[in-house]
Amino acid sequence: MKDEAGGSRLDGRRIYEGKVLSLDLEEVEEPGDVRATREVVRHSGSVAVLPVHEDGSLVLVRQYRWPARALVWELPAGRRDPGETPEEGARRELVEEVGLETGALEKIAEFWTTPGFCDEVMHLYRATDLRQGTARPEADERIEARRFSLAEALAAVDRGEIREGKTLVALLMEARRRRIDT
Amino acid sequence: MKDEAGGSRLDGRRIYEGKVLSLDLEEVEEPGDVRATREVVRHSGSVAVLPVHEDGSLVLVRQYRWPARALVWELPAGRRDPGETPEEGARRELVEEVGLETGALEKIAEFWTTPGFCDEVMHLYRATDLRQGTARPEADERIEARRFSLAEALAAVDRGEIREGKTLVALLMEARRRRIDT
Repeated sequence: MKDEAGGSRLDGRRIYEGKVLSLDLEEVEEPGDVRATREVVRHSGSVAVLPVHEDGSLVLVRQYRWPARALVWELPAGRRDPGETPEEGARRELVEEVGLETGALEKIAEFWTTPGFCDEVMHLYRATDLRQGTARPEADERIEARRFSLAEALAAVDRGEIREGKTLVALLMEARRRRIDT
Repeated sequence: MKDEAGGSRLDGRRIYEGKVLSLDLEEVEEPGDVRATREVVRHSGSVAVLPVHEDGSLVLVRQYRWPARALVWELPAGRRDPGETPEEGARRELVEEVGLETGALEKIAEFWTTPGFCDEVMHLYRATDLRQGTARPEADERIEARRFSLAEALAAVDRGEIREGKTLVALLMEARRRRIDT
């Protein structure tokens, strides 16, 4: 079965099936008569939220990320749970990671994080009308939350202190939005 | 051996070793006494380039991406070859994918694409002083290149037609730069 763009799967096998991801090795035919073997990481998709308080300040979290072997500043975010819509996932992660409930969740982007080898889709939201509750991180999460003004966050981007893909997209979209809005 | 942030690897095994990526399953101890099993995709790192012509127009490429099963608009980009610096990789991809040589390559960002499960680092460049030569894509690449004004590219972002992580970062950085510069 060809997809809309003209690609089709000829053969393949699952190398690994895991908790966060799976790995497939596939023989494919791509548009333009390209035959190739592709290594594909399968991922259920992710959600991330830029929380914006009434005074314009933003909430970022810092947590240790094993693959990076570093503490990483990023948006509250996580994987979509099975059966959950991206919006439900965004609301859940916002409560779990920073204890915030939102009265206004707006989708601002949907993108592939790294489509060369992974099917992960990132659903990016902006949350306003925030009410502070209590965070309840998962057992394997240690999360520090901090409020930044947009100017502070952009200065941290310029200094290379914020360096994570979805977080850069959200902060730069916010910068563009405020220039357009104001 | 603990890393700077306090994480250490207790045990692990390689599940798969491939051409584009490898997969490790690791038992780790993370800061805050978190013991966890992490699935980690290992990747050699990537380079991507925003080519900016003298008239301000930008060059993007469209190619089929099997994991997305779609034609994706993105920056000229690719994996780092072994032994290659990120800057050398950026120059190589720029020639291979769009036939452009650059007299001025500036690093604009370095970030993790998806640090929750993958160690890929993206090295992002902006290229000016461009000279047009002939593209020479790899055997399994079919690449369409097109020039966009920044306004056209941002309109395509707003319509959801450009939806790839590194490309959003680069276009939004360019928008911010021109507002600051001009």
